[in-house]
Amino acid sequence: MNKQQLIEQIKLKKSFLCVGLDTDIKKIPEHLLKEEDPIFAFNKAIIDATAPYCIAYKPNLAFYESMGVKGWIAFEKTVEYIKKNYPEQFIIADAKRGDIGNTSQMYARTFFEEMDIDSVTVAPYMGEDSVTPFLTYEGKWVILLALTSNKGSHDFQLTTDTEGERLFEKVLRKSQEWANDENMMYVVGATQGRMFEDIRKIVPNHFLLVPGVGAQGGSLEEVCKYGMTKDCGLIVNSSRAIIYADKTERFAEVAGIEAKKVQEQMAEQLKSIL
Amino acid sequence: MNKQQLIEQIKLKKSFLCVGLDTDIKKIPEHLLKEEDPIFAFNKAIIDATAPYCIAYKPNLAFYESMGVKGWIAFEKTVEYIKKNYPEQFIIADAKRGDIGNTSQMYARTFFEEMDIDSVTVAPYMGEDSVTPFLTYEGKWVILLALTSNKGSHDFQLTTDTEGERLFEKVLRKSQEWANDENMMYVVGATQGRMFEDIRKIVPNHFLLVPGVGAQGGSLEEVCKYGMTKDCGLIVNSSRAIIYADKTERFAEVAGIEAKKVQEQMAEQLKSIL
Repeated sequence: MNKQQLIEQIKLKKSFLCVGLDTDIKKIPEHLLKEEDPIFAFNKAIIDATAPYCIAYKPNLAFYESMGVKGWIAFEKTVEYIKKNYPEQFIIADAKRGDIGNTSQMYARTFFEEMDIDSVTVAPYMGEDSVTPFLTYEGKWVILLALTSNKGSHDFQLTTDTEGERLFEKVLRKSQEWANDENMMYVVGATQGRMFEDIRKIVPNHFLLVPGVGAQGGSLEEVCKYGMTKDCGLIVNSSRAIIYADKTERFAEVAGIEAKKVQEQMAEQLKSIL
Repeated sequence: MNKQQLIEQIKLKKSFLCVGLDTDIKKIPEHLLKEEDPIFAFNKAIIDATAPYCIAYKPNLAFYESMGVKGWIAFEKTVEYIKKNYPEQFIIADAKRGDIGNTSQMYARTFFEEMDIDSVTVAPYMGEDSVTPFLTYEGKWVILLALTSNKGSHDFQLTTDTEGERLFEKVLRKSQEWANDENMMYVVGATQGRMFEDIRKIVPNHFLLVPGVGAQGGSLEEVCKYGMTKDCGLIVNSSRAIIYADKTERFAEVAGIEAKKVQEQMAEQLKSIL
């Protein structure tokens, strides 16, 4: 999916919500455990209930890998299900990969060739040749970690160098030598508040993937106030607050209601640019 | 496996070689393609031929994931085969993971609980709470990226901060607040030469996992000269130069010969400390 198509979806649905599929066998409703593939059964119901209100899904690879082969099967089935039934949805493999060139190339092959997923999250620590193998696929995206939503983001990402530049700023600046706003987005945590102003000085037009609204406590209003562009420029993710909103047989219906609530808040925020 | 057991293996075998299982379906000998599981068949033969000369195996997750479910099955079978037949071997899941706390916890569950692997490589960009979930398992190890072997290591890892500390040095120093030399090692590329001197000033006793000898051009002598401790303190990895040394039906035998050559060079280097 290219940038223009993504923007059109946002305008059409009046939503820039991404539903994070952090599906944990220990947290899904008990009645699903009797299904042949409980993880996929959960995802399918969540997707059907939330699709009208979101423009993206983000399966978190860790949750699938933790179940080994069964988990990979559920992951592949989930991606296929979205692609077949909701081809307008942008899919993010939240994998936070990144390795030497020949290895990153293998990861790119997995997500972009084998699975035809739209985008993958990548960690920047290993630099240019760990990122560029992901950039050679037409219509595919790297979503590079810049300033994350967690407490540990302060350990290294905020370190200021001798040029007065913080590490996350260097990542934003330097990575533009390898990519542009048609094939790269950045992860910026919703918990980072006014830091979005500093980020927009370096990447005024790039889309940002923003986790941390919901369970992690970030504010949607603040993210929009400091991070929104004329094209929206934001994909805001919510995982736990939506998919685990209810633990009964009504779990999917309630997830849909929660997604709709977020979509309505987003429609409000989009009024200024639509 | 704990530190003392690892040191004993190194002394016993006069080797600190790790064989990297970067198994690529496009690079294995053609006659294996008729096997039911060519990747596992290749790994099994390589392991049987090289086990006398190495003390560790490092399956590179990217290569398995690129094959989807089949790849995960081959990965799990490979780990089980090593554990059953060569329980003295140290196993490294080269995954370069790292995410927010609840997600890192899932990755830790995968590698340490489900698969009972000894160690996993972790990327430091997201800081403390992305690393510590891996540290709660007795006898298990985090191998944290410090100074990698690739060209891109210069992009961010060498950035000097306002305190005069380079990023990889900050990672080495700061991570010692979370872990010690009984549950953490560091990745330092063999291509980094005299930088090992600087690294040993900060982590004099930690084991270092050293990729980059062989196909990437690093020098074993230099690594030992500047990086070896009284307990060895090094696990040096070679992947392509060993596992793809020959493409015929003799591939495993030749891999064994190549591994033995490296082991003999290592025995020479170990003379000063044994």
